[in-house]
Amino acid sequence: MSAVYDKVALIGLGLIAGSISLAARKAGAANKIIGTARSAKTRAAARNLMLCDEIADNAASAVRGADLVILCVPVGAMGKVMSEIKPHLKPGAVVTDVGSVKQEVIDQVLPHLPPQVHFIPGHPLAGTEQSGPYSGFAELFVNRWWLLTPLPDSDPSEVSRLRRFIRALGANVEDMEPGHHDLVLAVTSHTPHLIAYTMVGVADHLKRVTESEVIKYSAAGFRDFTRIAASDPTMWRDVFLNNKDAVLDILGRFTEELFVLQRAIRMGDGEQLHDYFTRTRAIRRGIIEAGQDTDAPDFGRGPKSGPANRD
Amino acid sequence: MSAVYDKVALIGLGLIAGSISLAARKAGAANKIIGTARSAKTRAAARNLMLCDEIADNAASAVRGADLVILCVPVGAMGKVMSEIKPHLKPGAVVTDVGSVKQEVIDQVLPHLPPQVHFIPGHPLAGTEQSGPYSGFAELFVNRWWLLTPLPDSDPSEVSRLRRFIRALGANVEDMEPGHHDLVLAVTSHTPHLIAYTMVGVADHLKRVTESEVIKYSAAGFRDFTRIAASDPTMWRDVFLNNKDAVLDILGRFTEELFVLQRAIRMGDGEQLHDYFTRTRAIRRGIIEAGQDTDAPDFGRGPKSGPANRD
Repeated sequence: MSAVYDKVALIGLGLIAGSISLAARKAGAANKIIGTARSAKTRAAARNLMLCDEIADNAASAVRGADLVILCVPVGAMGKVMSEIKPHLKPGAVVTDVGSVKQEVIDQVLPHLPPQVHFIPGHPLAGTEQSGPYSGFAELFVNRWWLLTPLPDSDPSEVSRLRRFIRALGANVEDMEPGHHDLVLAVTSHTPHLIAYTMVGVADHLKRVTESEVIKYSAAGFRDFTRIAASDPTMWRDVFLNNKDAVLDILGRFTEELFVLQRAIRMGDGEQLHDYFTRTRAIRRGIIEAGQDTDAPDFGRGPKSGPANRD
Repeated sequence: MSAVYDKVALIGLGLIAGSISLAARKAGAANKIIGTARSAKTRAAARNLMLCDEIADNAASAVRGADLVILCVPVGAMGKVMSEIKPHLKPGAVVTDVGSVKQEVIDQVLPHLPPQVHFIPGHPLAGTEQSGPYSGFAELFVNRWWLLTPLPDSDPSEVSRLRRFIRALGANVEDMEPGHHDLVLAVTSHTPHLIAYTMVGVADHLKRVTESEVIKYSAAGFRDFTRIAASDPTMWRDVFLNNKDAVLDILGRFTEELFVLQRAIRMGDGEQLHDYFTRTRAIRRGIIEAGQDTDAPDFGRGPKSGPANRD
């Protein structure tokens, strides 16, 4: 394919930026990719890995002449980065971001946006529990959603060009209203992460009681929580601080529900528990039918067998 | 190998029983395996699958002449099954179970135990979110823990024979005190399951608000919860009703912790959140080092690549 953008600048060189660079290179979606990160160690790692065509020492020089600038920093750092790059952005350039929260990012970025620069906020629903320059891979976005939350005055031709770039990385693009995005993600991502962090924290306290048994016998559900709770602490701190209202709303609903089930356990109300557990099964079927997860038992962790392999 | 037991009877034909039968057959650990289930449909499915050497119509005839009887029914049904099989157990036979709760199972089983029959409670820490006769596979127990909670008067030679049988299925065996087992499992399995069920329940309510978006965009953490919350409702109802004290204790600790984090979000205390999220990362490393989970990003759901595959 011919490149969608001539020069793409990546600010931040973690899992998402690294994967964007590798995927764009593979697809030929950009003629030149230049990356930068605040930490000299990260920049050195990215140079060794040849993660981008060029690693700049700072954001200001990375964005010079760039047609597309992708902010791949924690949500709380978006405003600061924008204030740094603002004087160096090329007129006509498109700025997008990959933050897990959209309304707050828009509020942080817009005050720094030069008049001739387009801002089209975005969020790839892709990632792993790993982070840093070594964690990226070209296939991260394949068949994943990448949500855009264009502003009312976003230039439609620039939005559709950005969509072309994102599709070249393998993702499916959809538009969403920023506030709605933040609510949906509070349900599907932010609150589950907080809960997983909490449960792992509880186990950490108890570890002193049960020594290493909590780790040793973790296979029974808990280890899925530990995977979620191994995600990047800075990224997640910023998510919670910047999507406060939606997360507190969903947390409130969660504790209400939990207390209902807790009471059913205390009262010995087996029928209520059974009904509840039966209803939640259906959602899982929906996710598998929507192609958003494997139906391999236990995520296919075991030998690739299943019933067919019984001999 | 020569068979550890001549005749093994499986009461219940779900994921665990099916996997025991297939694994024991593969290992040659029993000369004959006879299974039964309460539901005629399950028995018919097991016959079609040739899951066991023979499918009996009821538990009483299944256990006749059996050297080892394995109770693979939900925790709440153990006492009832024991009362049914009691008059038919062979003197000198060993009865074990696979229930996720141990003290309550012991309390249910002991009143029905004939004097010349050995009861050695057990719990394989293995499973998937799937259930029923079609869900078993021979490798389910490979490198998984299988805890035994022998009673003070358990015959050591019978315990070590049972251990040999379990090892033949591929599992690692350890002994534990029943009450301690129930506390450890409340942390590593029972409470995480309840929390996952709750979060999926919250999403189910919101689904009506956000239509199918919760499912569509589930890849971001939530789908791991839905897998856990897809487990067998009857089994889990019985777990919570029969490990009430430990689960309520851990749930109490969990909500305390959650409120601390919720307050930190409300107050905007980023330092506290960051510290918490950093601590929980270490537990994940411990689990991977203990060989209890893969370190493949996202459970290896993605293409088998990682950084090495960047081209």
